[in-house]
Amino acid sequence: MAVYTEVPDEELEAFIAGYGIGTITSCKGIAEGVENSNYLLQTTTGRFILTLYEKRVRREDLPFFLGLMEHLAAAGLTCPTPLRDRDGQMLRELAGRAAALVSFLDGVWIRRPQPWHCAALGQALAGLHLRGRDFQIKRANALSLEGWHAIATGLGADAERVSPGLADLVKTELAALDRLWPSGLPEGVIHADLFPNNVFFLGDQLSGLIDFYFACNDFLAYDIAVCLNAWCFTPEHTFSPERAAALLAGYESGRPLEPAERMALPALCRGAALRFLLTRAHDWLHTAPDAFVTRLDPIEYVAKLRFFQGLGSAAELGLAPGGVR
Amino acid sequence: MAVYTEVPDEELEAFIAGYGIGTITSCKGIAEGVENSNYLLQTTTGRFILTLYEKRVRREDLPFFLGLMEHLAAAGLTCPTPLRDRDGQMLRELAGRAAALVSFLDGVWIRRPQPWHCAALGQALAGLHLRGRDFQIKRANALSLEGWHAIATGLGADAERVSPGLADLVKTELAALDRLWPSGLPEGVIHADLFPNNVFFLGDQLSGLIDFYFACNDFLAYDIAVCLNAWCFTPEHTFSPERAAALLAGYESGRPLEPAERMALPALCRGAALRFLLTRAHDWLHTAPDAFVTRLDPIEYVAKLRFFQGLGSAAELGLAPGGVR
Repeated sequence: MAVYTEVPDEELEAFIAGYGIGTITSCKGIAEGVENSNYLLQTTTGRFILTLYEKRVRREDLPFFLGLMEHLAAAGLTCPTPLRDRDGQMLRELAGRAAALVSFLDGVWIRRPQPWHCAALGQALAGLHLRGRDFQIKRANALSLEGWHAIATGLGADAERVSPGLADLVKTELAALDRLWPSGLPEGVIHADLFPNNVFFLGDQLSGLIDFYFACNDFLAYDIAVCLNAWCFTPEHTFSPERAAALLAGYESGRPLEPAERMALPALCRGAALRFLLTRAHDWLHTAPDAFVTRLDPIEYVAKLRFFQGLGSAAELGLAPGGVR
Repeated sequence: MAVYTEVPDEELEAFIAGYGIGTITSCKGIAEGVENSNYLLQTTTGRFILTLYEKRVRREDLPFFLGLMEHLAAAGLTCPTPLRDRDGQMLRELAGRAAALVSFLDGVWIRRPQPWHCAALGQALAGLHLRGRDFQIKRANALSLEGWHAIATGLGADAERVSPGLADLVKTELAALDRLWPSGLPEGVIHADLFPNNVFFLGDQLSGLIDFYFACNDFLAYDIAVCLNAWCFTPEHTFSPERAAALLAGYESGRPLEPAERMALPALCRGAALRFLLTRAHDWLHTAPDAFVTRLDPIEYVAKLRFFQGLGSAAELGLAPGGVR
């Protein structure tokens, strides 16, 4: 939630001149995305987001991210579209960083999602999955089962400093997921981080999806599991069956789930809860408590993980009775 | 440089509805101002800055700040104008904070000021001083000589942790300023923090002044001294006589300096250098090194202070030969 890189005036002007989008009338660093420096840039012709990629984003992944946004936008998904400069380049250099300029999306993100927001989200997620099917570049999910083992090893005994008992919980859950993790489910491009702050609404309409910097190839249903974690709990970490049912029904209105995906959903939800538990625990230990960034509470995901561990079946998530379609 | 307060959707919508400026189309936390949470808010009728006042701003000072902006804007200075809601209020409440909505100013701030920028700045500063003369509310400068003594006492021996020798330098300089500090100079409303990031340019025009949250009543020439510190040194902390001469000439084109002000300028510059040295040293000691905020280097102001200490006369600052006017 911070701007890291300051851009010298002349460099910025020269950079923007490469696009033929008029001259700059304002440029504000915005508090969006923790990984990159983002500027809301206004020119005489329109509004844009300028992103400078900081060290946590691997340079070799950028053609995937930018190509995906361009592909999805061309296929009709409302998401930021990278601009190409006069030489046809999307990925450029500015102030010593890789940089890109993308279109600006109107809308605000929802701090307190209602079921109808979740229904719209589910529908948009299915739309993303369908439109991503013919995207050619691939990117493995670095934050799946194998990656979680690596983070857990890195945390080691320090997990106890986050919360007593956490080291044991992580170890036991990883062993369980090693057994339960599905195989052979439909795969494709997933967003992998579709939290409320990455989904914009304008009035009663979902107006766009942003922040594709965790996107990768994985089980499509895992993306649903991420959304169930991110959208379907109250601030007190209580599961909301109404929101989950709306999310799943919205998704199935665009892409009905296969029986194997329905069966796998509880395990996928546990995995998604563990994923955010692990990365938050890692960040918690590596961020000073008085840093002016919000340290996201890892314990929230302990509560969510325990909820998903206790599920008897996918039906308890609010899935409409499905059967074979 | 961070957003501190998250605003719940419904509260924000209700707040904005109080102004009759249409409905919200986007709202981005922006990295501007270290003291407050700032949002760039777009509605169906225009762009605005929404500010939530955090704990470092004293609530009782807000009528001065907001009243001053309204006064200056009405008098023709290009600066943010606070909007009044349907009940005529500028100062309201949002998410448990005092909050205000001000007009948005186009423009970008200049990372590498040239002499012509400094000339425009000087002219605008004189315009601010002239337009502030009939503003009725008063606010003492908490960061003048007395306030510096208090900060220095608070730093104590910790100053040595910022830089060896600093405690002594501060002590000696405060004693010198106690002797040298002028009295009886023309007073009025000053900005007191007119750094480059608070001055916007559009093409070759100065397009506005922002951030009046250090404004107060003090010697008008002290404001010039702040600007000489903030605008007239290279990144290597070398004084730029060209920029200073342009700044002073620009200022005098709007308000010629009195002989006593000219005489006092070197001491005022030393005071301004010490002021930023002290507050930066304080912040340096109280901000974690790995916090995602830029810790402004106090040492920069040691260099500036030493430069001003070595001045023979105001003429060396680039003042045009003045004499009595």
